[in-house]
Amino acid sequence: MDELPGALGTSASLSLRMGQTIFSSAALLFMCLDVEFYSYTAFCFLVTVMGLVIPWSLTLSLVDAYSVFVKCPLHQPGIMLVVIIGDWVLSFLSLAAACSTAGVTDLLLNARLCGRYQLSAAMAFLSWFLSLASSLFNLWRLPSL
Amino acid sequence: MDELPGALGTSASLSLRMGQTIFSSAALLFMCLDVEFYSYTAFCFLVTVMGLVIPWSLTLSLVDAYSVFVKCPLHQPGIMLVVIIGDWVLSFLSLAAACSTAGVTDLLLNARLCGRYQLSAAMAFLSWFLSLASSLFNLWRLPSL
Repeated sequence: MDELPGALGTSASLSLRMGQTIFSSAALLFMCLDVEFYSYTAFCFLVTVMGLVIPWSLTLSLVDAYSVFVKCPLHQPGIMLVVIIGDWVLSFLSLAAACSTAGVTDLLLNARLCGRYQLSAAMAFLSWFLSLASSLFNLWRLPSL
Repeated sequence: MDELPGALGTSASLSLRMGQTIFSSAALLFMCLDVEFYSYTAFCFLVTVMGLVIPWSLTLSLVDAYSVFVKCPLHQPGIMLVVIIGDWVLSFLSLAAACSTAGVTDLLLNARLCGRYQLSAAMAFLSWFLSLASSLFNLWRLPSL
């Protein structure tokens, strides 16, 4: 059985998950450097979503790492389906959070606030992109299980 | 060959497309009632995306209407694939536009501006939802062609 690079349990998937964890942590960090974010709904939403994405990606990167190093690939369609749906929902949520943050940041720029929020939005977009990639790779892999 | 309700060329698909056209026109209308929107990037983005969604949905609703009334269903996988990818991209774009509009509107509410932008964002969300539904129905239908 040939392994599709990027599907659950491969080293490409491990690097996608590591990227998601790093970018979403960076987005959360840039947002939370001070407590000012609390006054904007969009920023609170971003913090909530990133707080969901980080444990999800971290857990799946551990699963990938286990699967890569112990050479024990996962082939249960049930687990795959849960992972695909989870990735899917989180990818929509992180796109929504990134867009609302970007919209609000663009508005605040006129009021001459710092570019930290821009960085946070950019990180959230990167995290969304990697999450979508994971989801598509797993979806592509599903019929061959 | 059983017809999946919601796939291209059925009456359910026609009503989905009509809904998309109506909601995206409403979003565009609420946004453009005056020219104030021009000063916010998020609102310009919404207007651009809705300007793309309206002709797309209108064209496909005409295709559906033709296919329903002339009883000549479409069965080319190539056309189906173009429709799925188009729906997909437009669904992401309209989610992004709706979220950034909602984020900016929420911020402007503190400055006591009117709820017209809120209505526009809500219409954009409905349009996104219907567009996603169309895309999923067509994707589900694709393997049986």
